[in-house]
Amino acid sequence: MAVYTEVSDEDLDRFVAEYDIGDVLSCKGIAEGVENTNYLLQTESGHYILTLYERRVSPEDLPYFLNLMEHLAAQNIPCPTPLHGRDGESLRSLCDRPAAIISFLEGMWPRRIHPYHCAALGEALADFHIAGASFGMSRRNNLSVQSWRPLLDSCIDRADQVESGLGDTLSRELDHLERNWPNDLPTGVCHADLFPDNVFFRGETLSGMIDFYFACNDFIAYDVGICLNAWCFERDRSFNVTKAKLMLAAYRKRRPFSAEEMRALPLLARGSAMRFLLTRLYDWLNHPEGAFVKPKDPLEYLRILSFHQQVTKPQDYGLE
Amino acid sequence: MAVYTEVSDEDLDRFVAEYDIGDVLSCKGIAEGVENTNYLLQTESGHYILTLYERRVSPEDLPYFLNLMEHLAAQNIPCPTPLHGRDGESLRSLCDRPAAIISFLEGMWPRRIHPYHCAALGEALADFHIAGASFGMSRRNNLSVQSWRPLLDSCIDRADQVESGLGDTLSRELDHLERNWPNDLPTGVCHADLFPDNVFFRGETLSGMIDFYFACNDFIAYDVGICLNAWCFERDRSFNVTKAKLMLAAYRKRRPFSAEEMRALPLLARGSAMRFLLTRLYDWLNHPEGAFVKPKDPLEYLRILSFHQQVTKPQDYGLE
Repeated sequence: MAVYTEVSDEDLDRFVAEYDIGDVLSCKGIAEGVENTNYLLQTESGHYILTLYERRVSPEDLPYFLNLMEHLAAQNIPCPTPLHGRDGESLRSLCDRPAAIISFLEGMWPRRIHPYHCAALGEALADFHIAGASFGMSRRNNLSVQSWRPLLDSCIDRADQVESGLGDTLSRELDHLERNWPNDLPTGVCHADLFPDNVFFRGETLSGMIDFYFACNDFIAYDVGICLNAWCFERDRSFNVTKAKLMLAAYRKRRPFSAEEMRALPLLARGSAMRFLLTRLYDWLNHPEGAFVKPKDPLEYLRILSFHQQVTKPQDYGLE
Repeated sequence: MAVYTEVSDEDLDRFVAEYDIGDVLSCKGIAEGVENTNYLLQTESGHYILTLYERRVSPEDLPYFLNLMEHLAAQNIPCPTPLHGRDGESLRSLCDRPAAIISFLEGMWPRRIHPYHCAALGEALADFHIAGASFGMSRRNNLSVQSWRPLLDSCIDRADQVESGLGDTLSRELDHLERNWPNDLPTGVCHADLFPDNVFFRGETLSGMIDFYFACNDFIAYDVGICLNAWCFERDRSFNVTKAKLMLAAYRKRRPFSAEEMRALPLLARGSAMRFLLTRLYDWLNHPEGAFVKPKDPLEYLRILSFHQQVTKPQDYGLE
């Protein structure tokens, strides 16, 4: 949670004048999102999110992300949509950073996950994958299997500082993933970071999905694996099969799994655990002293990985 | 900038149900304010600020602060006013902290101070002092002259780590302030922290004053000294006499200075510089490694103090 870039009232007035949204009434930095700077912007015409893209987002990827949001919103996926300025552009520059104004979504992300959240998420994820099929742009997943070896190499000397034996465990797991990673599953647009803090609810209704800045083209079922990990484990990292069953059943009602996807799910879920374990481990070992953002515990994902290593059949996830 | 306490959606729904403001639509932690946790709360009836009071605010002082805001708002001072729940209470508890919902004010605080800001501030400060005269409660200023000696004692051994000779300079200055501090000036309610980030503008119009959590009863002219320091020095800490002249003239049009206040102003401004220098020095020397909030530079206030030490007459501030 951080505001990395402070925007002056004068720069902001100039920026907002490029849009047809009236004058600025207020603008508050919000303490959500660890990658970019986000402001809640109120103008005479309503509420918006103003995002300044910081160093962790590649500027050349921004058209993919912004166009994707616009494409999805046009198909009634509850996601923010970028505003266009009078010149037609949605991406411009503020305080020497790429910046955009996107629409504001109501709702709150759930701090405690109930089974009904998982059912709603499964449905929304399937709708997202279906809507993504007609999106014309493509972006490679630079955090998929081919990136894990260099990530692990950069951490392995110090991995055992975090937990004894961690380096060996990760090496063996990565050997397994690299040997067995599928290459012929259905691909499409994945959100690739659909954690609870990126999904808003009003009551039991899912009202928004946000933060498309890891979105990419990859195996669609891999995105399901990411959500399985992010939504169906309890705080003690035990697996909640009721939640998984509801999520997967709701998903499959909208978008059925192929037999290959079904078979691959345990491996994809292991891969997803590996991906978040490795990036968290990297951040844990490399975060600067006194950083604003406290890194997340990589070991949470070691527990999740251990669960998937013991899964022998899709039924263990509640799949029939 | 920080959110110290995270509020779950479920706790929030329960809390907001105590008020007649409809259901929660969204709630975002805002990265402003270093003492408390603030959320921008949107409900079916509008926008509000939800504040959770953290350890630096004494719970027994909260009725003073909340009642003061209510008193001022009733007299058309542009300040937030606390909402009352169905039980009549404005102060209640959330996540084991005292908490209140206050009204939301439009406007942005000025990052770059122009002379017109200072004129508007002078007028608003005088109106605030006049409106405060009829407020029935009282709170001692626990950051005034009697608190500076223990603060300095706790820092003096390490003061020279910040700047060579700083300990001596502060000791001599404090001797002077203690010997000469007045005891018979007009007193009243002071904001005592009216820095630019606590004052909102829309265009050239002052639209709000916020953050009353240092408010107290003290010499009214001391509050003017605080604003002189906070608004009339440039980034290089040079004194801008145009700004001071505009601020003081606008103030005196609403609330004239007595001859004693006029004479005391240079000393009160030195005292104000000392107060912020000492609390910043304390925070600088004592902030925990890796803290969210970066401490402010105490030396800014050393430059301001040096200026006031050379002032010989009120005319140096642009006073006639």
